[in-house]
Amino acid sequence: MRILFHLPLSPFSRKVRLALGEKRIPFDLRTERVWERREEFLAMNPAGTVPVLTEENGLAIADSAAICEYLDEAYPDIPLIGRTLAERAEVRRLVCWFDNKFHAEVCRNLYHERHMKRLMGRGNPDAAAIRAGYQNLKPHLEYLGWLAESRPWLAGPNLSLADLAAAAQLSVLDFIGDVDWSLNDAAKEWYARVKSRPAFRPLLADRVSGMTPPDHYVDLDF
Amino acid sequence: MRILFHLPLSPFSRKVRLALGEKRIPFDLRTERVWERREEFLAMNPAGTVPVLTEENGLAIADSAAICEYLDEAYPDIPLIGRTLAERAEVRRLVCWFDNKFHAEVCRNLYHERHMKRLMGRGNPDAAAIRAGYQNLKPHLEYLGWLAESRPWLAGPNLSLADLAAAAQLSVLDFIGDVDWSLNDAAKEWYARVKSRPAFRPLLADRVSGMTPPDHYVDLDF
Repeated sequence: MRILFHLPLSPFSRKVRLALGEKRIPFDLRTERVWERREEFLAMNPAGTVPVLTEENGLAIADSAAICEYLDEAYPDIPLIGRTLAERAEVRRLVCWFDNKFHAEVCRNLYHERHMKRLMGRGNPDAAAIRAGYQNLKPHLEYLGWLAESRPWLAGPNLSLADLAAAAQLSVLDFIGDVDWSLNDAAKEWYARVKSRPAFRPLLADRVSGMTPPDHYVDLDF
Repeated sequence: MRILFHLPLSPFSRKVRLALGEKRIPFDLRTERVWERREEFLAMNPAGTVPVLTEENGLAIADSAAICEYLDEAYPDIPLIGRTLAERAEVRRLVCWFDNKFHAEVCRNLYHERHMKRLMGRGNPDAAAIRAGYQNLKPHLEYLGWLAESRPWLAGPNLSLADLAAAAQLSVLDFIGDVDWSLNDAAKEWYARVKSRPAFRPLLADRVSGMTPPDHYVDLDF
């Protein structure tokens, strides 16, 4: 069986889970406690990070960007990276925006400080990082809202990996109660649309020991 | 004419310059002082980063990952991301390794602290970051050397974007004199092979005001 090694609150694992779901590709989930540095896991991904996808033929694919490109090539029926060269450039630009820029400026400052540090026993959250994370969230939600108002989906006419990358990052912050959705109506309306897709349902069912998401996390009309 | 907006010592710009060179795609270079936040540039890439590639038909592509995927799709004659699904997964895993992990653990700590901060007038280098960068370089060179010894090129039988991503990061550190090549012979031998390719020549000719690269920077038998 196809297996995705993941962590429930890893935004990059969530992006791949959403991509597999949208493409209707069946898979089993396996939680990988990356901080234990399991030898068989490091052999598949020397970087020691989730997600890693293994196919039944033995192929192991590491890094969420490599996995998503692989999925669109190996299972092209429901494309997620656009059709024309211009569409594909815009999808990938936005995926990089959310994977790199949003993650570094917002998600990492909040999710890593408030969740991962505790999980990995790496001390107390850094208050300055958390402040920066909250400050950076606002312009990011404004940009997202502007995209959502200008186009049917973030990268253009169709739902794409850009929507999934953005929703994956935001869903993790939403789980830990860190998104003030009143900051931007268009961003909130877009998130409600992504959240109500069948591929999103498993993410809403995630539970992490010692953490309770806010009530609106599972509410489709939050 | 095709234009690449870049900075001479941006490793991500260098990766794209090498990819364009290997593919024999002609282009003009234009230096973009990203810290001036030029409006026309921000319209092409709201992230405000180099590289950005513009095609003659008006298409602007932002983010080096998006540009490299675009180049392999639009100009497939000389492929740089592998042929089979397994090869492509391995090339992309390693590109992500060097673009993200190597950059964050080594290149950013050295190049950003020692070069970009001065360029952008953002204060003095952080000694702890520079120490961390040097410490992290050693295991990274060992991994690179191990790959170079196990395979003809880093990701497999053919030169690929993985070699270009790695060489781009290392070439920037080499320019500022921060690579101790005596740490790993196999890594050094691999770098000499990449460095002697015609696509690399323009990078060796780069000059940046106020900085003189060490003599071995341009030496193919360093």
